Formats: sequence, C-alpha cells, structure tokens
Amino acid sequence: MRAQVLDAVRAELGEHGYDGLTVDAVAARSGVHRATVYRRWGDVGGLLADVLDAAGDDGWQPPDTGSLAGDLAALNHEIQAAMTAEPPVMAALIAASFRSAQADAAQRRLWADRYARCEVIVDRAIGHGELPAGTRARPLLVASTAPVYHHLVLLRLPPDPALPDQAARTAALAARHGAFTDR
Amino acid sequence: MRAQVLDAVRAELGEHGYDGLTVDAVAARSGVHRATVYRRWGDVGGLLADVLDAAGDDGWQPPDTGSLAGDLAALNHEIQAAMTAEPPVMAALIAASFRSAQADAAQRRLWADRYARCEVIVDRAIGHGELPAGTRARPLLVASTAPVYHHLVLLRLPPDPALPDQAARTAALAARHGAFTDR
Repeated sequence: MRAQVLDAVRAELGEHGYDGLTVDAVAARSGVHRATVYRRWGDVGGLLADVLDAAGDDGWQPPDTGSLAGDLAALNHEIQAAMTAEPPVMAALIAASFRSAQADAAQRRLWADRYARCEVIVDRAIGHGELPAGTRARPLLVASTAPVYHHLVLLRLPPDPALPDQAARTAALAARHGAFTDR
Repeated sequence: MRAQVLDAVRAELGEHGYDGLTVDAVAARSGVHRATVYRRWGDVGGLLADVLDAAGDDGWQPPDTGSLAGDLAALNHEIQAAMTAEPPVMAALIAASFRSAQADAAQRRLWADRYARCEVIVDRAIGHGELPAGTRARPLLVASTAPVYHHLVLLRLPPDPALPDQAARTAALAARHGAFTDR
C-alpha cells in the first residue's frame, strides 16, 4: 500500500507541483481509502516526507568508474538527469522543502545520507593513491556537486551539458593539489 | 514612497516569511495608502519583484583585495553574511522565488546582474598574470560561490566559518591550473 500511495504522491507532485498536491487527490489516484491515507500520513507534509525517506531506502550506491574524476562526473550526470527529469519530481520535492517543515527535515536526512554514501568515492581515490591521504570527503563532494545544483535550482538556467564534467574535473584537480587536506 | 514600501516589504518578509506577507500589512507598515500600493505593485509577487529589482540598482561592486583568492573569499564572506543575516530577508527572497513567478523572474535578473558584475574579478586576475588568458569568468565564479549557497540554502546546514575561504581557495587553485580555460 505504501508503494502505491508514494507513487501517487510523485505523480501528483510531478503534474501539479506542491501547490496542487492534496491528500484527496493522492488517495484517489492510489486507490487507497482516503481515511487510511489521512490516518497514516496525516497531511501533504507527511506524504512528502515519506517520499523523501523512501528515496533514502533505495539501496542507491554512487558510481564506481575506476577514477575519481570519472566517479564525480558520473555522479553529476545522475544529479543533472534527476533534476531535469520529466515530470520534475525531484525539483518539486526541493521546492516543497521550502514550504513544509516535515519535507524540510526529510530532505535534510536524504542529503546527509546521499553525501555519506558518496564518501566511498573519496576513500577509493585515497586508497589507490589518486588523492593525498587525509583528503576530506565532504567538502570535496560539495565542491564537485554544488555547481550543478546551483545552476539548476537557484540560478534556474537551462541545463549546461558540459557542467557535470567540468565541475567534477575542477574538484578532482583541486583535490589532487591538496585543496581538501586541511582547512 | 518606493523606498518606504520596499523597506516595509523587507521588514515583513524578515519577520513573517513569504507565507505571512500581505499587501495590507506592507501598506500599514509603510504608511502608504493601501490603494496606492495595490495600484502600483499589484500583489505580493509584484512587491517581491520590486525588492529584488531594487537590489540590482544599488551600485554594488565586487570586492577588490588585490588577489583572485582574496576577491573570491571576500565575495563568499559577503554571501554567507547576507544569507545568515537576521532578519533573514535574502533567504526569504530565495524561498519566495520558488512560489511567485514574478519573484522568480526578478531573482533570475538579480543573479545574472551580480555574476556579470563579478566578472571583473576574473578580468583583473588575467590582467596581472594570475590566471591564464582565456579563463572563463562565469564557471569560475559559480565554482567559487556555489558551495556556500549549496551548504546554506539546499543542505540547510549551520554556517561553516571555514567554507567561504575554502571554496574560494579551491576555485582559484583550479583556475590557476587551467580548469576554466576550455570545456
């Protein structure tokens, strides 16, 4: 039942955005009785939070291409593809996190989980000598991914097909030169 | 009259956020007749757009510290200070740009204007030989500033006092190594 309801939330969100999302429409679309939806999820904020929490349970693992720059570039291409997918579910979830305290908290949990899973990219690069020992994973991952999010979510510019590779290359180059070994 | 009304918008937005912002409260706070406010600005979206457009008319110039890394770091400190100021007017304007089409368009104009003004930082660094000729200003500026916005606006983590300098240093290092000379 959870899967049907969350599928319906994603579909409604993609079609109508946060402003058009209602518990009643989700219940109708999912075929689950609306009283059940209200009892289990409470409101739109609860539904959005559960979509985000479910995204964190998906077994996702970061790319493993054999090189740091390759892994970071593949990660950025995944991010750009997700952020520009139609219907725009991920973009709508980020927008919703500015509106609903529950969605905000769930979105923060998801960011923290995703960046933690990605730390293995940096560990591997240190392991095979591509990066100096003591390179800090989190600021390197933020440096690599932030330009892609910034371009699409805040600047709201059309996707730049070169940006995922360029941001990854830039972060990897700086990391090899020790930009993230101390502060 | 415009200055009083826009001051009132910023004050109401800082105190109550987008959801608490009303034309009537802005009119009352500014001492301007509400019919006048409705006639000139239309609605909350029109008021927000004018606050953002006014921010673009402020004669702001980017820092000029004598070095690329210094300029980028000073810029990042300005951004971090603005994003964490109380009341949180800038953060509320960014959040509002997800809600109002007029605020969204005005926010895009402001981003474009600010990044265009900052290109002189890169021109100066090329001029005194700190950066290779042909370094592209915009992706370098995005690489330097994006981590600060990403950390505060999307990840919504507490401000990291080391991040403005670190992101600036990282972008400057990559730029010196030619990361932004081609794509």
